[in-house]
Amino acid sequence: MAERAGSGRKHQVEDTVMRDLLRVPVGARVSLSSYDASATPGGATAPRSKTDGLEAVARMGVPLAGLQERLWAASTAGDRRRVLLVLQGMDTSGKGGTVKHVASLFNPVGCRVRPFTAPTPEELEHDFLWRVRKRLPHHGELGIFDRSHYEDVLIGRVRELAPRSEIESRYDRINEFERSLTDDGVTVVKCFLHISYEEQRRRLLRRLANPRKLWKFSPADIEERALWPAYQEAYEIALERCATDAAPWYLVPADRKWYRNWAISRLLLEHLKAMDPQYPEPDFDVEACRRRLQEEG
Amino acid sequence: MAERAGSGRKHQVEDTVMRDLLRVPVGARVSLSSYDASATPGGATAPRSKTDGLEAVARMGVPLAGLQERLWAASTAGDRRRVLLVLQGMDTSGKGGTVKHVASLFNPVGCRVRPFTAPTPEELEHDFLWRVRKRLPHHGELGIFDRSHYEDVLIGRVRELAPRSEIESRYDRINEFERSLTDDGVTVVKCFLHISYEEQRRRLLRRLANPRKLWKFSPADIEERALWPAYQEAYEIALERCATDAAPWYLVPADRKWYRNWAISRLLLEHLKAMDPQYPEPDFDVEACRRRLQEEG
Repeated sequence: MAERAGSGRKHQVEDTVMRDLLRVPVGARVSLSSYDASATPGGATAPRSKTDGLEAVARMGVPLAGLQERLWAASTAGDRRRVLLVLQGMDTSGKGGTVKHVASLFNPVGCRVRPFTAPTPEELEHDFLWRVRKRLPHHGELGIFDRSHYEDVLIGRVRELAPRSEIESRYDRINEFERSLTDDGVTVVKCFLHISYEEQRRRLLRRLANPRKLWKFSPADIEERALWPAYQEAYEIALERCATDAAPWYLVPADRKWYRNWAISRLLLEHLKAMDPQYPEPDFDVEACRRRLQEEG
Repeated sequence: MAERAGSGRKHQVEDTVMRDLLRVPVGARVSLSSYDASATPGGATAPRSKTDGLEAVARMGVPLAGLQERLWAASTAGDRRRVLLVLQGMDTSGKGGTVKHVASLFNPVGCRVRPFTAPTPEELEHDFLWRVRKRLPHHGELGIFDRSHYEDVLIGRVRELAPRSEIESRYDRINEFERSLTDDGVTVVKCFLHISYEEQRRRLLRRLANPRKLWKFSPADIEERALWPAYQEAYEIALERCATDAAPWYLVPADRKWYRNWAISRLLLEHLKAMDPQYPEPDFDVEACRRRLQEEG
C-alpha cells in the first residue's frame, strides 16, 4: 500500500492516499457547493494535465489487471472476496464513460457491469434492495453498478416516488445492507461523480450539437436539470447518512474526465492492493501431471 | 460489406469474405482432422504474421466500436436486433482469451459475457435450454457465450450425462431454438475454436510451468484430454447437425492466437456491417432544447 506523505525527506516523494483524500468523512455535514467540480486533488500524486492523466492511467493497467487476475484465481480456491464499484452522479456526470474506462482496464470475464434504470413492475413488487441483491458480483469479480440502490433515495426523494417515511427509512436499510456485504467479503467503493451545473449545460449542448450523440439526449434531461438544487440536496443527505466506515463514499470531482478516470482507477488500485489477493497453491501433484504430459510425446 | 475477390484487376485487391470462407457448409460431413488448426486462411485479406495480425485487429477497433454504438443507439428507438457470439472449443482452445480480446474492442456497457459451467441443481431441474434463455443478450447488445447449450451435446454426449435418446433429440431442439432467436432479431455467430492435440499439450505444459497460470490447471484436464477422439467426434456431429442457414457454424483455426483473434473480430465486423444499424432520428425538437439551454447562460 502507498503510504501517506509523512517526513517529506528529500528524494522521497511519497504517494497521497486517494482513499483518504477523497473519502467523505463519516458523520460530517456535506455541502456540495463547497467542492470545486473542476479540481484535481492529489498533490504530487495526481496528474497535472490530460496528457499526464492518460499516461498515469495507462501505467495502472498492468497492476490492475494483475490484481484482478489474482482475485479471480483466489476465488477458484474458495476466497469469497470481491469488489463492488458503485457509480452515482447527475445526468452527464460520466457514469457511462467511467464504466467504459474502468472495464477496459480489467478482464471482462471477471467484470460484471450492471446498469440500474427505472424499476420494472416486477421489481416494484419487492423491497427496493431486491433487484440489487440479484446483481451483486460473484466471488472474485469486480462488479460495477451504473446507478444503484441510491436512486431510491435520490430520484425517489426528489420525485416523491414513495412516502416520505419510507424514503427516510431507506438510509439505515442501505447501511445495514452494505454492512452485510462487507461482512460477506465485498469491498464496496462508492463514487459520487461531482459535476457543476455549468458543465452539465456544456455536455447537454454538446450532445445536441452532435448527430452521433443526439440519441443520448432526452427532453426529460432538461426537466431533471430544473430540479438541480433538489437533487444536490438529496445527494448531500445520502452522502451524509450513508458514508460509513464499512462502505465509504468518495467524492470525485468530475468536470475533467481525465481526472475522474484517473482518480477512480487509483481508488480501485488502492483497494485491490490492500486486499492483496493471492494465487492459490496447487492442490495436486504438479510434477506428476507434467511427467504424464511429457511422456506422451 | 466487403465483396469476395472477383476480377483480380490490378490495384484492386478485394477482401475475402471470411463469413464465406470459414462457414461450415450446411448439410455436409465434417472431418476435423482434415482442417489444419495452425492454418491462417483468408488469402490477401488475412494477416501473415503475429505483428500483422495485431495491427489488423487494432485497425478494426474503431469501426467495431462505432457499429456497436449504432446498434445500441438503435435499440433505444425500438430496434430489437442484437448479436450473440457463441464460443466453443476444447480446453485451452482460447475461449477465455477470445472473450478478453473481443470484449476489449467493444463498450462493456453493451457487451454481456456469459460463461457456462456445469449446470446447478436448479438448472438441472429444467430443460437444457432454460438457463440459456435467461442469459441472452438484450436488444442492442453483443452477447458472448463462453461455452453454451452445445455443452449438452458435447460433454453431455461423451460423458453420457443424459440418455442417448435425449441427447439425440437435442440437435433439432437447438436448431429450433436458434431459429427462434434469429426470427427475433438475434444474429447468431457460432465459432468453433479448432486446436490440435499437440497444441493442447503445449498449452497445458505451459500452464504447469508457470506459477501464475497453475490455478487454471486441473488434473481433470488430463482425464478429458484422454477422451480427445470422442470429443472430436461429438464436435463433428454438432457441427454437421447444427450448421444452419439461420445460425451458421464457423470453424476457426486456433493454434495461432493472433489469427484466431483476427478471424473472430473480422467475422463480427462483417456481421455488424451487414446489419448496418442506424442512429435513430430524434423524436423531439432539437432546436428548441438547444435554445432553452443556451438562454440559461
